[in-house]
Amino acid sequence: MKNIEEKILRDGRIIDNDIIKVDSFLNHQIDVAFIREFAMDVKEFFAGKKIDRVLTIETSGVAIGYAVAEVFGDIPLVFAKKTKSKTVGADVYHTPVRSFTRGATSDVTVAMQYLREGENVLIVDDFLAEGNASMGLIDLCRQANANVAGVAVVIEKTFQGGRGRIEKEGIPVFAGASIKAFHDNKPVF
Amino acid sequence: MKNIEEKILRDGRIIDNDIIKVDSFLNHQIDVAFIREFAMDVKEFFAGKKIDRVLTIETSGVAIGYAVAEVFGDIPLVFAKKTKSKTVGADVYHTPVRSFTRGATSDVTVAMQYLREGENVLIVDDFLAEGNASMGLIDLCRQANANVAGVAVVIEKTFQGGRGRIEKEGIPVFAGASIKAFHDNKPVF
Repeated sequence: MKNIEEKILRDGRIIDNDIIKVDSFLNHQIDVAFIREFAMDVKEFFAGKKIDRVLTIETSGVAIGYAVAEVFGDIPLVFAKKTKSKTVGADVYHTPVRSFTRGATSDVTVAMQYLREGENVLIVDDFLAEGNASMGLIDLCRQANANVAGVAVVIEKTFQGGRGRIEKEGIPVFAGASIKAFHDNKPVF
Repeated sequence: MKNIEEKILRDGRIIDNDIIKVDSFLNHQIDVAFIREFAMDVKEFFAGKKIDRVLTIETSGVAIGYAVAEVFGDIPLVFAKKTKSKTVGADVYHTPVRSFTRGATSDVTVAMQYLREGENVLIVDDFLAEGNASMGLIDLCRQANANVAGVAVVIEKTFQGGRGRIEKEGIPVFAGASIKAFHDNKPVF
């Protein structure tokens, strides 16, 4: 069993065989060593590929994106925003993304200057479920004429179809742990 | 001139002698090497102090908090949340915080299990202006009977009084750069 699977079994909590809470190491409290180990696995998976930039989405993706950008040699990280604040300008790419956990649709934005034509972008996130966030980030990259080199997530729920949607676009997917099902509020890998 | 001051002069943008935008390296795109250098300065400033945990606030604090937690030897990081999601439980400490840039008040929360009695907590954030966010995080620590070892921010605006409010509580403050004023939309250090 992989370290990350052990971590999920030990510290994750599943509610109603539906939602997995990993607040103790990923989404609220952050286990730095754990996330850096994931980042090193991502680097190994994408070995030999030129990666220019990491793209993620606030909030839970930020620490993971930082770790990956650092392990890839301090490349730029940009996080897409879910709300517009008065300190974000008007020159943004945007795309609608429906959140699985929140059940709401956000307009997700990245300032145009932080996604560049021809760059190879690695998309990073905490979860891959239906793939809505990843597909939204892929859409932002395509609006910028950037190449999506891959998608890397800490935890994938394989029964929700996200991987298929991304791979159909010719984009490789790496997951630290792949959950096939929940039974009795426990994950099955 | 310090590296961080040079970075602000070169890459920051000031709007209406009021709001400073550091989206190119801190708040939207993230310069990993820059943030790690700040984290190392924080470690030097708090040398000899026992720090058990880093506390920050979403979203802009997360990458900075990660860097500081990593430099302090992979200690736990927790980020306070500005909104309640359905994956956060009811057992939270909470405190109202007014945002200077957004002009709105949020109920800022930390799950009780991630702030522990007797721990030495280092509070980390991107900006220190009026000190509302820092005072809110200090309040959360006090609700938990945790000790606040200090507050470390990347950029301080000294003319808005935040440092005085924190130091009055007997808590040391470290700022990577201290801006005394804005003149002609340029910072004065």
